[in-house]
Amino acid sequence: MLEQLKEKVLKANLDLVKNGLVLFTWGNVSAIDRQSGLVVIKPSGVSYDGMTAEDMVVVDLEGKVVEGKYRPSSDTPTHIELYRAHPEIGGVVHTHSTFATGFAQACRAITAYGTTHADYFYGDIPCTRSLRPDEMDEYERNTGRVINETFEDKDVVAVPACLVANHGVFAWGKDAAEAVYHATVVEEVAKMAFITEHLAKKPERLPAHVADKHYFRKHGKNAYYGQDKKD
Amino acid sequence: MLEQLKEKVLKANLDLVKNGLVLFTWGNVSAIDRQSGLVVIKPSGVSYDGMTAEDMVVVDLEGKVVEGKYRPSSDTPTHIELYRAHPEIGGVVHTHSTFATGFAQACRAITAYGTTHADYFYGDIPCTRSLRPDEMDEYERNTGRVINETFEDKDVVAVPACLVANHGVFAWGKDAAEAVYHATVVEEVAKMAFITEHLAKKPERLPAHVADKHYFRKHGKNAYYGQDKKD
Amino acid sequence: MLEQLKEKVLKANLDLVKNGLVLFTWGNVSAIDRQSGLVVIKPSGVSYDGMTAEDMVVVDLEGKVVEGKYRPSSDTPTHIELYRAHPEIGGVVHTHSTFATGFAQACRAITAYGTTHADYFYGDIPCTRSLRPDEMDEYERNTGRVINETFEDKDVVAVPACLVANHGVFAWGKDAAEAVYHATVVEEVAKMAFITEHLAKKPERLPAHVADKHYFRKHGKNAYYGQDKKD
Amino acid sequence: MLEQLKEKVLKANLDLVKNGLVLFTWGNVSAIDRQSGLVVIKPSGVSYDGMTAEDMVVVDLEGKVVEGKYRPSSDTPTHIELYRAHPEIGGVVHTHSTFATGFAQACRAITAYGTTHADYFYGDIPCTRSLRPDEMDEYERNTGRVINETFEDKDVVAVPACLVANHGVFAWGKDAAEAVYHATVVEEVAKMAFITEHLAKKPERLPAHVADKHYFRKHGKNAYYGQDKKD
Repeated sequence: MLEQLKEKVLKANLDLVKNGLVLFTWGNVSAIDRQSGLVVIKPSGVSYDGMTAEDMVVVDLEGKVVEGKYRPSSDTPTHIELYRAHPEIGGVVHTHSTFATGFAQACRAITAYGTTHADYFYGDIPCTRSLRPDEMDEYERNTGRVINETFEDKDVVAVPACLVANHGVFAWGKDAAEAVYHATVVEEVAKMAFITEHLAKKPERLPAHVADKHYFRKHGKNAYYGQDKKD
Repeated sequence: MLEQLKEKVLKANLDLVKNGLVLFTWGNVSAIDRQSGLVVIKPSGVSYDGMTAEDMVVVDLEGKVVEGKYRPSSDTPTHIELYRAHPEIGGVVHTHSTFATGFAQACRAITAYGTTHADYFYGDIPCTRSLRPDEMDEYERNTGRVINETFEDKDVVAVPACLVANHGVFAWGKDAAEAVYHATVVEEVAKMAFITEHLAKKPERLPAHVADKHYFRKHGKNAYYGQDKKD
Repeated sequence: MLEQLKEKVLKANLDLVKNGLVLFTWGNVSAIDRQSGLVVIKPSGVSYDGMTAEDMVVVDLEGKVVEGKYRPSSDTPTHIELYRAHPEIGGVVHTHSTFATGFAQACRAITAYGTTHADYFYGDIPCTRSLRPDEMDEYERNTGRVINETFEDKDVVAVPACLVANHGVFAWGKDAAEAVYHATVVEEVAKMAFITEHLAKKPERLPAHVADKHYFRKHGKNAYYGQDKKD
Repeated sequence: MLEQLKEKVLKANLDLVKNGLVLFTWGNVSAIDRQSGLVVIKPSGVSYDGMTAEDMVVVDLEGKVVEGKYRPSSDTPTHIELYRAHPEIGGVVHTHSTFATGFAQACRAITAYGTTHADYFYGDIPCTRSLRPDEMDEYERNTGRVINETFEDKDVVAVPACLVANHGVFAWGKDAAEAVYHATVVEEVAKMAFITEHLAKKPERLPAHVADKHYFRKHGKNAYYGQDKKD
């Protein structure tokens, strides 16, 4: 079932390790097959070494396991909340990557200081509010809900990642590979923002006209970066 | 004698290098066989390159060498104090890993700022007081004693590591592999805490309800992270 | 056409990855053949994995593609502005390397604090002013122009790199390899300057007599570092 | 001539790269044969890739080349000053390693904050005064002299390294390998000290009784770290 998608989700999980975003089992990637409404996700607490496509778990949008010998990632309900709220999302990644988690632990957004950021994110990468004590039941599901709450006035395509206060990073994209790409950019721009803030007394956000220029030279109908899609 | 345990202690020592926690010979791992009361530990000042299981040294809980062609790690008395005071401990690691040693040199605990920390440590990772001049005799043994003093009101299972003021890290676990795992987490959360403190003016400790949630979703009878133990 | 130059430009692009200066496709190198006035440059948005010399694009100094199956780097007009204004330049590199981009995002020069800097750069590595809203049309060309404006009173041979405010690094040299070398030095001296500023309250610029000594022991007719050119 | 020593000096130079202390050709190692009074040193500006023992240059204590097809390192006069002033020194290393150079650029010593430092250095790692304009002639020789001036009241065996203000690191030892070992420790304790100072408001130097304990458990006639020398 969904063998090709399992291969892609496996590869995306292994790319988390290759890109230096995870220690041990601290991360997970999923992707959705929108036609069947089924999600393929990494098993919980299983090491990346020797992991195979067969180890991936298939769940439905209620979180019920449809196929797989393992229990799915404990963060599965968060992934599902994102897929349910945003039909544009095809893949979701969760990491505790070091610098981005530093921002999450400081309970603050990654400010858009430069064009590296603007090439991928239209505006700051926001941070959710902290979860309340009464949200500790259904914790992972509420983590997804608080991300969705944070994006009530934002576009998940223009800002494909969110920090969760005290916790870490969720990033997404049209598929699993793009979600991992975005998670990698989040870590790099977090590191750059950290350095920027320690060089400038009160650093300025990137001017809006430059942010627009960089975002729209890579995205939308007038984009001219890269090769034509038909290439 | 204890050939299997020697293999595990060797592997754990090599994992210190693989996980980037040690330079040269700056670290050591031991494990205890509770049945015989014997401890297997790395030899002192021997390079990790080409080290074999045969090079491990066996000592008793008085610190007497029972088997081995080398002298045991000079930190052996610290390991022994930990094994004697805490029957829950099966493996002990000592490192000078960079960020955690920064905290130890600043003579302060690693504050629990996020869920990465809370997944493994229930509360801050404490730092001992500095040793007094009159504690320089039996220095390594007193290092173990001051860790035990620091844990008089703490649970070594819930907080499986301690910083030693001015010095470095001791971490432990149910066996050598888990001790190395915890030492690796200590370094990563130390780095994240360093970044957090440099982003926030006065960062807040992780709220207790989130800390509880994360710790207990991985530990104790209601844990639901990972696979069933019987898997 | 220009097959040897394509090989050199390919190698220089791959060296960006090897030297840790780029993530994904975030960088580009070009070189000019002054005789024909043609520039060889990396294609836009193409991955470094499996890239071949054949993938390089040849453009003229008007930016017209002369040969190549791909579209050239979207930064091509910046490279061309530099080649047109400065006949001494034979190769150009663009990166978003982490620490140097931190300085660019802080909109400030990399101060010359030490001899590592002075060995390659005669004085600070400047940062351009931010581009104005009316400069967003012909954005990449204006990026080249604002670099040239910044160098109106500077010598591109003595200071072979420039930060672009909010953006990243442009570096150059007599050929593509030297441009990559300079871009690598920029990142290292940026990291050193970051550390220096966080250790000293108000760090002093390197004294002029030491800067002169180091620069001129490597450059100019009295240089004595390295081997004789005929060696 | 001195073929064995050339092999050792070559290996020590390559270890600089392996230990992450040098970029490009930014470092050099030498060793002295005290019987003949001849020094073997890395050639100037030659890449580490493909370097052979045959490429090493032999000079006498006047700096005259005795053997070798290349010109010796331009820092040769600094090495020679150290060998002439201190018969205990058998190998010398020069690096621009990142964190230690940060301290040198801040024109300050690396404070002894912890036992990692005390295991190898008895007290702070000092930084020379800045060279005066009238010392720019015979610059490299005066670099050696200012190190010797800094050590007038210090012991080169107990403190086997010195920062040169605005410049970088010189470290030494009984042979080339030990000099590289010390240069590696300098970089690591510089990084730890940087972190320590950014965690503590006003960090305290390691108490003298702990410093003594750590230094003397590794050095001198009562040392008990490592294996017996006869082992």
